[in-house]
Amino acid sequence: MQGNNRITQLFGIEKPIIQAGMIWCSGWKLAAAVSKAGGLGVIGAGSMYPDVLKEHLTKLKASTSKPFAVNLPLLYPDIEKHVQSCIDFQVPIVITSAGSPKTWTKTLQEQGIIVVHVVSSSVFALKSQEAGVDAVIAEGFEAGGHNGREETTTICLIPKVRDVLHIPLIAAGGIGCGRSMLAAMALGADAVQIGSRFVASIESSASQAFKEKVLEAKEGDTKLMMKDITPVRLLKNEFYQKVESAENNCLTKEARLELLGRGRAKLGMFEGDMIEGELEIGQVSANFQELKPAAEIVEEIWNQFLEEKERLIRL
Amino acid sequence: MQGNNRITQLFGIEKPIIQAGMIWCSGWKLAAAVSKAGGLGVIGAGSMYPDVLKEHLTKLKASTSKPFAVNLPLLYPDIEKHVQSCIDFQVPIVITSAGSPKTWTKTLQEQGIIVVHVVSSSVFALKSQEAGVDAVIAEGFEAGGHNGREETTTICLIPKVRDVLHIPLIAAGGIGCGRSMLAAMALGADAVQIGSRFVASIESSASQAFKEKVLEAKEGDTKLMMKDITPVRLLKNEFYQKVESAENNCLTKEARLELLGRGRAKLGMFEGDMIEGELEIGQVSANFQELKPAAEIVEEIWNQFLEEKERLIRL
Repeated sequence: MQGNNRITQLFGIEKPIIQAGMIWCSGWKLAAAVSKAGGLGVIGAGSMYPDVLKEHLTKLKASTSKPFAVNLPLLYPDIEKHVQSCIDFQVPIVITSAGSPKTWTKTLQEQGIIVVHVVSSSVFALKSQEAGVDAVIAEGFEAGGHNGREETTTICLIPKVRDVLHIPLIAAGGIGCGRSMLAAMALGADAVQIGSRFVASIESSASQAFKEKVLEAKEGDTKLMMKDITPVRLLKNEFYQKVESAENNCLTKEARLELLGRGRAKLGMFEGDMIEGELEIGQVSANFQELKPAAEIVEEIWNQFLEEKERLIRL
Repeated sequence: MQGNNRITQLFGIEKPIIQAGMIWCSGWKLAAAVSKAGGLGVIGAGSMYPDVLKEHLTKLKASTSKPFAVNLPLLYPDIEKHVQSCIDFQVPIVITSAGSPKTWTKTLQEQGIIVVHVVSSSVFALKSQEAGVDAVIAEGFEAGGHNGREETTTICLIPKVRDVLHIPLIAAGGIGCGRSMLAAMALGADAVQIGSRFVASIESSASQAFKEKVLEAKEGDTKLMMKDITPVRLLKNEFYQKVESAENNCLTKEARLELLGRGRAKLGMFEGDMIEGELEIGQVSANFQELKPAAEIVEEIWNQFLEEKERLIRL
C-alpha cells in the first residue's frame, strides 16, 4: 500500500493506522509498540507535565527508530514547553487539537516537523488546510473523550470533509476493526486514527481496572455529556450518573463545573477509581472484548482490512 | 451484483438500494420512481389513514409491476387495517418498526409476504432474527426521525449487528451517496436504506418548503431531541428551539408532550410550515444541495458506488 497511499508516504510508515494520542493511556510504551508494528505510535502529551513528556520522548527514541508523533492539545497551559520539547527531540510529526491551527503550525514546520490538525467539521478542515497543515484528522461523534458540538458522525463527516480538502485526510471515531477501517477508506480517508481499541492493549498506560471496564462495555454504555461546557464522551459509571443527574436537574454550569472538579480523568483512567473517576472512551468499546498486545491489534485490523477488501471486490 | 447479493435476490431487485418509508414524504410516486430505477421503493404507511394507504397501493400497482414495500410502524393505531391492506394488495415486502417483530411476522409470512424489521442495536437484531424475520435493517444515530436510545452510530452498529446475524442485513443512517453506500457494504451490510436524500427528490410528497430547507441544511443543523420521551432527530427551526428551550429549562415530560402537541410533523413536512412544524431529517442532509428526480438519485449513488469500489480496489 505504501506506494500510492499519501499518509504512509508522508509519515514514512508501513500501514495507514494511526494510534490516537489519548490522555492517560498513550505513553512511550504504547507508541513504541504501534510504531514497531508498522503503524504510527503517538504520545498523548495532554496529560503530561513538561518533564514527563521529555522522559517519554527519551524512552521512545531509545526504543525505536521508527516514525512516531506527539498529540498536543493547544489549550495545554504550558504549551510552549511542550512545543520546545517536540523541537528538541526532533519529533517527526505533531498532531494538534483543541485550538487554532494558525498558532503553531508554521513554527513547527520551520523545524521540519509534519503538522496534522484534528477537526470535527468540514468548516474547520478547510480552515486547517488554509493554515498550512500537512494533513487533517476528522473525528466523528462516536469518538471517545472531547468531541465536536455539531455531533456529526464519521459516516456523514468524512465524505463532506473529503470534498473540501486536497491534502491527506485521516478518519477517526468508531474505528476499531478492519471492517470500519475499510469503511473509512471507502468514505474517502487516506488513513485511520484508532483510540479506544488501543486503550485496551497490554502496552496502554490505562489502569487495569479501566481496561477491564472498557472490554466489558456494551452498546449504549457511553454517552456524550456536558455539551454546553465541553462535549465529552464518557463511559457510564457512578460519576457519569452524577453528571447526568446534574444535567437532568438543570444545575447551573458553575455547579456542574464544580462537580466535574479537577483530576477526575486521572483518577479514573490512570489510577483506576471506577466509581468517582471520569472515564473517556468511544462507542466502539462495545465491539471488542479481549486485552491484546498493541502489535497484535495492528496486525488483526490490518489483516481484516485486507480480507474485507477482497470480499468487497467480489460484490 | 444481483448474482451474489442476498438482498437483491430476496427482493427481486437490481440494485441493493432501499428507499426508506418515511412519514409524509414517501407516497406511491416516490416508491414507483425508485422501484422503476431498480431499487426498492417503499410507501411510508405511518402517516396514512387506512383508506389513504389503499389509494396509494392502487396507484403504485397501476404504475409499476416491479417489487416494492410498505413501511409499517407497529404502534400505528389501526395496524390491523394496514396489515389487511398489505395482504389484500399482495404487497411483496413489509418493513416493520417501532414494536415487537413477534406480533405480525408470522401472519404476514403466511401470506407470502417478506418481512424486514428495523432495529438500532445488535440485541434487537438478534431478537428479530429469532422472531423469524427475513432480513434486518439496522439504523444508526445519524438517521432522521425516530431513533434508538443507545445512540449507536452506523459505523459502530453495522459490524456489531453483522456479527450476530446470519440473515441479510440492510444498513441505514447517514447514507446519501455512493461513498457511504460502499462504506456500509464494507461494514458488513448486504444493502443500504436511504431516507433523507429521497426527501429532496421531485417525487417525494414533502412540501416544497421542507425540501428546500433540507437542501440548505449544514453540518450541525439536525439534533436528536426528546430523548427521554421518544428520541427523534429534528432539523433546527423555531419549533426545535422551543423543544430545546423546554429541555434546557427542565420542563416536565407532560409540559413537553403538550408543546409537541399533535400534527406537528404533518404541519412541517407536508404542509410546509417551517416555523411551527416538526421537521424530521437525518444528519446526511448537510451533504447534498440539489433537488433531483428519484431515478437520478438512484443512478448517481449506484454509479459513485461502482466508481469508488474501483478506487478502493487499487488502494
